[in-house]
Amino acid sequence: KVVLTTTTTTGVRRRGNARATGTTTTRGGRHMARANAPKMSPPDAKSLVDATETFIFDCDGVIWKGDSLIEGVPETLDLLRSMGKRLIFVTNNSTKSRAGYTSKFKSLGLNVGAEEIFSSSFAAAAYLESIGFKKKAYVVGETGILEELDNVGVQHIGGEADAGKQVTLKSGELMHHDEDVGAVIVGFDRNINYYKIQYATLCIRENPGCLFIATNTDAVTHLTDAQEWAGNGSMVGAIKGSTKQEPIVVGKPAAFMLDYIANKYSLRKDQICMVGDRLDTDILFGKDGGLRTMLVLSGVTTEETLKSPENDIAPDFYTDKLADLLCLKPVEA
Amino acid sequence: KVVLTTTTTTGVRRRGNARATGTTTTRGGRHMARANAPKMSPPDAKSLVDATETFIFDCDGVIWKGDSLIEGVPETLDLLRSMGKRLIFVTNNSTKSRAGYTSKFKSLGLNVGAEEIFSSSFAAAAYLESIGFKKKAYVVGETGILEELDNVGVQHIGGEADAGKQVTLKSGELMHHDEDVGAVIVGFDRNINYYKIQYATLCIRENPGCLFIATNTDAVTHLTDAQEWAGNGSMVGAIKGSTKQEPIVVGKPAAFMLDYIANKYSLRKDQICMVGDRLDTDILFGKDGGLRTMLVLSGVTTEETLKSPENDIAPDFYTDKLADLLCLKPVEA
Repeated sequence: KVVLTTTTTTGVRRRGNARATGTTTTRGGRHMARANAPKMSPPDAKSLVDATETFIFDCDGVIWKGDSLIEGVPETLDLLRSMGKRLIFVTNNSTKSRAGYTSKFKSLGLNVGAEEIFSSSFAAAAYLESIGFKKKAYVVGETGILEELDNVGVQHIGGEADAGKQVTLKSGELMHHDEDVGAVIVGFDRNINYYKIQYATLCIRENPGCLFIATNTDAVTHLTDAQEWAGNGSMVGAIKGSTKQEPIVVGKPAAFMLDYIANKYSLRKDQICMVGDRLDTDILFGKDGGLRTMLVLSGVTTEETLKSPENDIAPDFYTDKLADLLCLKPVEA
Repeated sequence: KVVLTTTTTTGVRRRGNARATGTTTTRGGRHMARANAPKMSPPDAKSLVDATETFIFDCDGVIWKGDSLIEGVPETLDLLRSMGKRLIFVTNNSTKSRAGYTSKFKSLGLNVGAEEIFSSSFAAAAYLESIGFKKKAYVVGETGILEELDNVGVQHIGGEADAGKQVTLKSGELMHHDEDVGAVIVGFDRNINYYKIQYATLCIRENPGCLFIATNTDAVTHLTDAQEWAGNGSMVGAIKGSTKQEPIVVGKPAAFMLDYIANKYSLRKDQICMVGDRLDTDILFGKDGGLRTMLVLSGVTTEETLKSPENDIAPDFYTDKLADLLCLKPVEA
């Protein structure tokens, strides 16, 4: 006789266009049951740009795809700057620091300053600075986080130094950990291993008050333009699984980065427009923050996904690509 | 001005004796608000043993600790066998197969047959067999799972063969995956790496109907007797984080293994006694399954934890160690 009884906790299986991300934001009531976003017309573009003092751009899928610039981006950014708009670039990718992203912008022919860039690696360091953190940080993640911690003077261990370390679990084996670690920062790490998982777990479980900070919880991300790759949701999930604690998230769609930016530049949120290619991080981040929102179809979201009954996140407008704003360019004499 | 706004999803921090495990079983109403378990007296022991046809023992913390046998265990098992009791040994540790555990029992001087052992590695294979699974399995885990899949004739890839594989994420990099994989099995894996995480993620996200099976979701476990180590909750959490799916759990406290055992031996559940050292896996597993339950303090649970207001899981009895049942031994003439 075959035994069929099993336990699944929810049985939820989301496939295809119903994109999965790490957001745990409650969306009840704040979005329309079915997204009903208009495609941006030239008059829409004019009124949106007129009302906007600051544009916040997601990078991947808006500015570039992998290592390729998206068509018309340089001219569009030049136009917006010539109209006196403030431009800010945000990314949940923590593998590079602000300095690292400046180099990437430069290599693509874009002149963007470090102070215009807000990566989740920067956000993690800014968060620790904002709370007056004085202890050590243990890092599961890559060089971007380490560089940003250096910039705010936070001592760190782990990160790239722990790549390749092995745990054999031989009889009596004991891993010592630094009791001065007061925060574990978890970002995407292609060299994730059991040593790092156990070290982070020991710090969070055994050091009183140790913080658990996630740069972001994206399920998947376009780390190469060839396919979707498991994102920092995996690294964060590993540490959640052994500590049973929820992290403090500093990247999109959590509010920290937006509040930080608005505070730093004394911005009114209704004068900010968030431009992104993902409904459940970028557009949600904008809507939850009280910003105007514009979805571009040059990244992961298709028009079909936007209009699907399963989507309940509606941007103010959507358009094919950022360069559609070039319709506002004055006709030259 | 310092920005303090952050997002935490729950802010729950469980520390010290409030042990964290991966169970998501709803416990509402099924346990007393405060556990009120009596310490087992000799008359209690007699009535419990009289009413019990089959004992199910957790291994770690009941039979052994790490590589050391717990005092009095061989004599107690001999006594119970001499009284005609059926003995079954269960463990959530998937790193060994039934055959592997038979060797471990033997090395400790215990004569236990493979058919008396139910490891979560065996349970994963038994589950696939029970559903008539005919495709390939991708394994995140160690040799125990691979050996058990061989025993039921399920083709497998991954596991130890993928230890040490690297992903560089260079421009254009693409990971191919086998479209015949119909199940990903995730067990404890000291060689967890990003290659395995991405491979498992691709199978679950892209192969239609691909199952996601967890041998268990224990947060921490005594892999050495020197400290607690991050358990399979980490490996499962990594795959949950990138797929946003909940696994089918075959180990404790899920019901699959108990139903399988009861069915195989045609056991009445009220004639089974579960003996374990963990409240939230062993005792919960027993209570949820309608078994009698006995907690031993020779493992991770202290009397203080059992009686703490935070604990709501009450075994029928508790005692210091399994050998306390030796009080039932007839006095020799």
